[in-house]
Amino acid sequence: MKVALFLEEAGLEYEAIPIDTKLGDQHTPTFRAINPNGKVPALTDGDAVIFDSNAILLYLAERTGKFLPRPDAGSAARAELLSWLMFVATGVGPYSGQCVHFRLFAPERLAYPIKRYDFEARRHWQIVDDRLAGTGHMVGGTYSIVDMAVWGWAPRIPFMLGDEAAMAEFPHIARLMAEIDARPAAARARAIETRHPFKGDFDEAAMRNLYPQIFAPDPATARAR
Amino acid sequence: MKVALFLEEAGLEYEAIPIDTKLGDQHTPTFRAINPNGKVPALTDGDAVIFDSNAILLYLAERTGKFLPRPDAGSAARAELLSWLMFVATGVGPYSGQCVHFRLFAPERLAYPIKRYDFEARRHWQIVDDRLAGTGHMVGGTYSIVDMAVWGWAPRIPFMLGDEAAMAEFPHIARLMAEIDARPAAARARAIETRHPFKGDFDEAAMRNLYPQIFAPDPATARAR
Repeated sequence: MKVALFLEEAGLEYEAIPIDTKLGDQHTPTFRAINPNGKVPALTDGDAVIFDSNAILLYLAERTGKFLPRPDAGSAARAELLSWLMFVATGVGPYSGQCVHFRLFAPERLAYPIKRYDFEARRHWQIVDDRLAGTGHMVGGTYSIVDMAVWGWAPRIPFMLGDEAAMAEFPHIARLMAEIDARPAAARARAIETRHPFKGDFDEAAMRNLYPQIFAPDPATARAR
Repeated sequence: MKVALFLEEAGLEYEAIPIDTKLGDQHTPTFRAINPNGKVPALTDGDAVIFDSNAILLYLAERTGKFLPRPDAGSAARAELLSWLMFVATGVGPYSGQCVHFRLFAPERLAYPIKRYDFEARRHWQIVDDRLAGTGHMVGGTYSIVDMAVWGWAPRIPFMLGDEAAMAEFPHIARLMAEIDARPAAARARAIETRHPFKGDFDEAAMRNLYPQIFAPDPATARAR
């Protein structure tokens, strides 16, 4: 969704190709030749091949010069951009993903992993909220790819924390999300999925495609303990 | 360690300031003003402030023009660099970290989280090994910051997988690590910690500083289930 948002904001022409992860489209040799990690999104642009949503945002911002405050190599602004983009990419995203997995999709509801990832997801979102309390945006005092990266996960905060009222804890995130949601590009990005309906069922085949480790044999070390 | 490796490889002057995470140095207001995420490493460079090890590698490579193959914006080489750097930053690092946590530091040895992260860590390392089987390096056919990023985690593969012989499964990673380890810059990077001894005990105070969620109250949703 954040890549779609950038493409729409920048007015770039693109073709959206649906990869239905519940059906295992991400595991085909054709898709693995583009992204060996077997995850969406991925992008091809002439002879360039890019995967990982945050890598794609940075690539497109550099390519177009848009939504990237002062991209001078070695500047304080570049340092700020790279630090916060990586904070979202390596912290907010992974911990939010683990929080969703253990709260909703793991074979059992295990108290300690739920507690660990609830704590870490909240801690990361609080840092984002504190950051936005300053100038209203993640970097450079203006709308950038780092705000777009936050928009990719933040609407799922109530879902990941298992609390419909959770956005009330993060008023600055809620405000920025409302601002982005009101932009015509966001509506156009959301409309893509209505043109490409995916198989919706979370059946066992989908679980095998999404979480293969559930069905894998136990590792030797876990067996030995 | 990977930031120290870059600084030594590039011959940059720097001052290493020890942040003893077991003593909680990462949680002081002074350090939080540099990195609000309370993690090491962080770097200041004139008026630039950078945190997250991979953000620092990219910042320094752009600043110096070193260990960064053809950094042209919008090029296929830039796409390749950003994709693989993000793969290491958002996949290899986080999943390796969770694998270590559940195998060694969580309050209980829980079978499913150990299995999930053993599977995901191995899957990521296999992708790295397959990648290195090609031209011997992660991107551009030459030694770059992405190889340095891999070097930051790969020596801990036996530790994280709980298997002293685990490197035998990843011969191309083992070869690259041996190549990097043989470089004088790697020896100089490793020597830094001998000049800055840290408190070595994993006592309860250290656990509270490193894994505060263990001591946090249960989240409401976990209690309700």
